[in-house]
Amino acid sequence: MASQSPPRNASAAAAVRTRAADAAEQPYFPDEPAAPVIRTAIPGPKSQEAIKELDRVFDTRSLNMMANYQNSFGNYIADLDGNVLLDVYAQIVSIPVGYSNPSLLLAATSPDMASAIINRPALGNFPQHDWAHILETGILKVAPPGCDQVFTAQAGSDANELAYKAAFMWRRRQERGGPEVEFTQEEIDSSMNNKSPGSPDMSILSFKTAFHGRLFGSLSTTRSKPIHKLDIPAFDWPQASFPSLKYPLEQHAEENAKEEARCLAEVEELLTTYHNPPAAVIVEPIQSEGGDNHASPAFFNGLREVTRKHNVLLIVDEVQTGVGATGKFWAHEHWNLRDPPDMVTFSKKAQTAGYYFGNPELRPNKPYRQFNPWMGDPARALLFRAIINEVERLNLVQNTAETGVYLYSGLENLGQKYPGEIQNLRGKGQGTFIAWDSPQTRRGSEEGEGCWYQHWGSGERAVRLRPMLIFQKKHADIFLEALEKVLKS
Amino acid sequence: MASQSPPRNASAAAAVRTRAADAAEQPYFPDEPAAPVIRTAIPGPKSQEAIKELDRVFDTRSLNMMANYQNSFGNYIADLDGNVLLDVYAQIVSIPVGYSNPSLLLAATSPDMASAIINRPALGNFPQHDWAHILETGILKVAPPGCDQVFTAQAGSDANELAYKAAFMWRRRQERGGPEVEFTQEEIDSSMNNKSPGSPDMSILSFKTAFHGRLFGSLSTTRSKPIHKLDIPAFDWPQASFPSLKYPLEQHAEENAKEEARCLAEVEELLTTYHNPPAAVIVEPIQSEGGDNHASPAFFNGLREVTRKHNVLLIVDEVQTGVGATGKFWAHEHWNLRDPPDMVTFSKKAQTAGYYFGNPELRPNKPYRQFNPWMGDPARALLFRAIINEVERLNLVQNTAETGVYLYSGLENLGQKYPGEIQNLRGKGQGTFIAWDSPQTRRGSEEGEGCWYQHWGSGERAVRLRPMLIFQKKHADIFLEALEKVLKS
Repeated sequence: MASQSPPRNASAAAAVRTRAADAAEQPYFPDEPAAPVIRTAIPGPKSQEAIKELDRVFDTRSLNMMANYQNSFGNYIADLDGNVLLDVYAQIVSIPVGYSNPSLLLAATSPDMASAIINRPALGNFPQHDWAHILETGILKVAPPGCDQVFTAQAGSDANELAYKAAFMWRRRQERGGPEVEFTQEEIDSSMNNKSPGSPDMSILSFKTAFHGRLFGSLSTTRSKPIHKLDIPAFDWPQASFPSLKYPLEQHAEENAKEEARCLAEVEELLTTYHNPPAAVIVEPIQSEGGDNHASPAFFNGLREVTRKHNVLLIVDEVQTGVGATGKFWAHEHWNLRDPPDMVTFSKKAQTAGYYFGNPELRPNKPYRQFNPWMGDPARALLFRAIINEVERLNLVQNTAETGVYLYSGLENLGQKYPGEIQNLRGKGQGTFIAWDSPQTRRGSEEGEGCWYQHWGSGERAVRLRPMLIFQKKHADIFLEALEKVLKS
Repeated sequence: MASQSPPRNASAAAAVRTRAADAAEQPYFPDEPAAPVIRTAIPGPKSQEAIKELDRVFDTRSLNMMANYQNSFGNYIADLDGNVLLDVYAQIVSIPVGYSNPSLLLAATSPDMASAIINRPALGNFPQHDWAHILETGILKVAPPGCDQVFTAQAGSDANELAYKAAFMWRRRQERGGPEVEFTQEEIDSSMNNKSPGSPDMSILSFKTAFHGRLFGSLSTTRSKPIHKLDIPAFDWPQASFPSLKYPLEQHAEENAKEEARCLAEVEELLTTYHNPPAAVIVEPIQSEGGDNHASPAFFNGLREVTRKHNVLLIVDEVQTGVGATGKFWAHEHWNLRDPPDMVTFSKKAQTAGYYFGNPELRPNKPYRQFNPWMGDPARALLFRAIINEVERLNLVQNTAETGVYLYSGLENLGQKYPGEIQNLRGKGQGTFIAWDSPQTRRGSEEGEGCWYQHWGSGERAVRLRPMLIFQKKHADIFLEALEKVLKS
């Protein structure tokens, strides 16, 4: 049979749906455990066996935990050996509203979803009749200020690359003299030979320690770790310094302002002098893979000014920061820009991907210039709509802002109790998007007293917290208690 | 609510599943229409309205038809105005076993699928416990000869790019002296600056008129149309001529053999002299976007020999040709290679993507070198498993081989009846993967007498047939009759 489950198992499917409908009316998760359960060292014996089997056909060297998602609920992830952990990493920041969320389960078992899964369209050629409605009640309902259009994609990497392509087309159209000016024969011929002027020697400016993906264009803008880049050909594109702020911020205001001015001057220098001229600057609101590096709203306002001044687009990469985790739906809303970014990319917690934009000039001047057969996935767009509804139903952006204040304050207290163990605590007022530097040499994502979080996986020695949007004060208490045990030991 | 359907609609969901289970036991499609229905010109009034709405938020200039997938069954696609067309294009070659296929519907409504949709893992870090089983009973069950490993991806473009990355890492490891040799400090530092030796000046060799995707690395190997490439920076990578064969093949055997030898010599010349040395050659079994350009098994055997001789990898791009359409599960099985390709990429009809490989040296020497958060999608892997089961249940590769012979012969007859209208008919013995050149200047994908197929959308003036694997002789009859009406008019 096509499915693992018995085909006649229709009443079981109905029961699942009825139960989900009941659960979806309750606040948070009826099935969520009350606390972590540790039964074995991780990986336990059953997990070890499963890892061995998987390794025959799939690289398992980056494997952290062999998960059982059917037994995972809310903030808790289960493995094969009966261990249940509070998940403060959330699948590399991409589970928004909890494992086995009943509202998402309802969406996932709806007839619309079934059709989207089995009848996947080539969206650019044969969109489904309700695609506009799905966009308007989902992806576009939460479009950032200044954006009313979207180009959908598969994941963060290609979302960024598609934004780069839009930027290059926009810039060349300006240089050419407008949308009506036809390509020259020289452009047409040289493009087929990967040579300028058809394939122009232009660039995207990114920041040192930035992460924007790992395909060839996006990797050329990624500067976080050599292991991502070694042996892979890259474009000769420029990088500017990202501010290296000193903490606590209150005590280093003048120094930090100078540092930000220095970085902005470097951006301006590169925009005006780099031999492969930048068509756009891409920036993360918080450099996440790079170790949670923050900058002030003043810096980002300055970046918007300097890009506008030099007629260069500003792309804000909200792949990791977007969808509520910083206490705003989009992290760049913290900046209060008067002049919005030109494009905003998203993925991860959205469970689908793409770039938002508002300026109609960012639609290429001809069809099929920005195009690919699938152009995203309506199934995943339906899921994002359900996620948005759940975020609204439970007021989860507000919850994350409030839980963040509570969690940050708990970490400040721990920092005072264990001086030196929690350095450069950062993310105040940024929801639960909190990190600090640790002198302890644990490497990667690990279990610590029933909690799973990332210790030294990003930047030089950062510990990053990336809980879901349903992380509440009670979960913060469990985490803080677990962390104290780790710090004590 | 999270879903458009009423949450309490559990019994309706159960009824859908019971009906699907009944239908899945029958041969082919109980709900498939008997013939096309044309009610209005396309787009009709309702479609025009929907297109107008969609255009406000989504570029519709490449739109062919506003589809209603809930009313589409088997080989037939429906629109909003009651038109039902025989679909001989199949969402740019990516619908394998028919719209609203009952076996796929069962898989799409299974508890495993629901969990895969709502609990999407970071596969490299937290794979689900049955991931090995899903791979072994699905993607790997149909692995091409010589391949027993897979790296999963999202779509054809990134599948190809990930294969390129594997090739570059493999080649540099050889140059470095093996997997145990560490990166030098110079490599580490230069890679962060996008410069050689860390980001090496190496290349992927592709063929003229090839199509391998539209992200920055894959687009650098795509050479089919300027509109794909204009204004986008590209790598300085080499291209070789692809054989330009003369038809009918029987009458031009000697000339064609010379042409293939010329192209192979060009490949060898580029492999040994190009200033950015190729780590791999990528080739399509049939250049599809380029206008359905074929080459003989002898050519591909020669390509395997010349790449092996110069220690360069051979990547076969089966994104469009794979999964049965040529009358073999993989088109390159027609070549009877003694020495298999190093990597085979897939997407489209598989409804998931990735690259197959067999040589363990193609696993990078360290973790996190070939990595991204999602690394594919278990939901789509479950769907591919259901597709494979359906292909086996209905013996669809065999069906496609047989229907192809019948269809080809019908086209030969039409060609004799309307001389000049069907030129360079090609794809004999390649299942339903059939094309010809037309002197008629219709452009793009269009409706012709109740059938939707691609006229002049690929290559210079090719008409491409890309039916699903469930296309039978009765459908071929409908298509041939419709085509004759078009040719007459």
